[in-house]
Amino acid sequence: MSRYRLTVAYDGTAYAGWQVQPGVETVQLALERAIGKILQLELRVFCSGRTDAGVHGEGQVIHFNADRELDPFRFCHSVNAVIAPDIRVRDLQSVPDDWNARFDVLNKTYRYRIWNGAAVPPFFRLYRTHVSGELDDAAMREAAALLVGEYDFASFSANPNREMDSTVRTVFKLDVIRDGAALDFEVQGSGFLYKMVRSIAGCLISVGQGKLTVEEVQVIRDAAERSQAVSTAPSLGLFLWEVVYRDTIN
Amino acid sequence: MSRYRLTVAYDGTAYAGWQVQPGVETVQLALERAIGKILQLELRVFCSGRTDAGVHGEGQVIHFNADRELDPFRFCHSVNAVIAPDIRVRDLQSVPDDWNARFDVLNKTYRYRIWNGAAVPPFFRLYRTHVSGELDDAAMREAAALLVGEYDFASFSANPNREMDSTVRTVFKLDVIRDGAALDFEVQGSGFLYKMVRSIAGCLISVGQGKLTVEEVQVIRDAAERSQAVSTAPSLGLFLWEVVYRDTIN
Repeated sequence: MSRYRLTVAYDGTAYAGWQVQPGVETVQLALERAIGKILQLELRVFCSGRTDAGVHGEGQVIHFNADRELDPFRFCHSVNAVIAPDIRVRDLQSVPDDWNARFDVLNKTYRYRIWNGAAVPPFFRLYRTHVSGELDDAAMREAAALLVGEYDFASFSANPNREMDSTVRTVFKLDVIRDGAALDFEVQGSGFLYKMVRSIAGCLISVGQGKLTVEEVQVIRDAAERSQAVSTAPSLGLFLWEVVYRDTIN
Repeated sequence: MSRYRLTVAYDGTAYAGWQVQPGVETVQLALERAIGKILQLELRVFCSGRTDAGVHGEGQVIHFNADRELDPFRFCHSVNAVIAPDIRVRDLQSVPDDWNARFDVLNKTYRYRIWNGAAVPPFFRLYRTHVSGELDDAAMREAAALLVGEYDFASFSANPNREMDSTVRTVFKLDVIRDGAALDFEVQGSGFLYKMVRSIAGCLISVGQGKLTVEEVQVIRDAAERSQAVSTAPSLGLFLWEVVYRDTIN
């Protein structure tokens, strides 16, 4: 048996999220079907963390076991030849048998992408959430700085009771990146609560629109309890951007 | 009566090209329906030049007549609210009654977009043609330089006999723009023959792949007759990028 790590990009538009569910097409199911077809075996794949319906993957990482040695280039080429073009496998690496795509994560980076202009160009309509009015970048940056560090992020979880243990997480960085109408929030953390990135994005948009003050964001954070003041931004702007593992850091 | 000039972007994937045809959805039809609904009248729109099925528009320009004065911001907002999100109207300007989107063109710019890497990222799959092998940029640039100037471009027309008069055109520039795996050919000219940009793109790709030499491109150009040596690149990589009009030049 050989264990492999595979980096995958996907357009989440057509999928009912990552995880296999009866009766719907999911990214996991499409990958298991395609890889199973190439390897001629039934298999399961395990990801760094599920993504919801409509969320995109730029650098999702999975692991799976194969019964033989695989050539990275040929394997990726073969999988991409049989899977739908809205999923692409990017890079295959051999890993130790106990390597785990979920448990060995050092940090994850998400991007929340916005089109902050009058009309979303057609080519971005599935990949950037539309926010048409003017946004106060300086205020968003101030609010973002308040969310960097180790905090109880329960205020930014869709359902804190669903979390199995602590709602404390560490955000290493939260950048507000502006390029004309294209606006990205890039957030890197040790791990994230359910809908945490979309809740942070919703909160920063509210700050940019003047609906929330920077001071109110601090109060919301410190309350460590979800309130109606924090809205969850739509799924289509969210990308799982990059996953870094312990073993890849020197 | 007031005449208006409107800039339009569209994702051509779902449309049977620009021009109204019976029984199929076209970009022209979608625009006439949406603008007609806003203005409550039946109208026709006239474009700078048709695009084929699958070709995209970044800066297509049209003109139409309205029976009243239109506010640019409100008009664009209203049209975008009723038309599909794969078409966006970008900018409305009032023009003289004899202004014509087709006949007043000074120059047009197209981009032919390629993904020159192992796998096309899912987010570009409808907007960049896949060319997986290595391409010789220097050779493509040399060949491109041979196609800048005033020439009989019949070798790069899909159907020279279809052209109503001369097949002489002037190409002002033809740039090979590389940004990693993203490769664009940007071509600006006085006007273009049918499928001329896709034929130039197909020819440059062949040069990049070593299937055609730079010298052969010169022979092909000078023959002024279509041959099997020139292939037509797929429609999905083609964008009508920008149209410049006589009256907008100082």
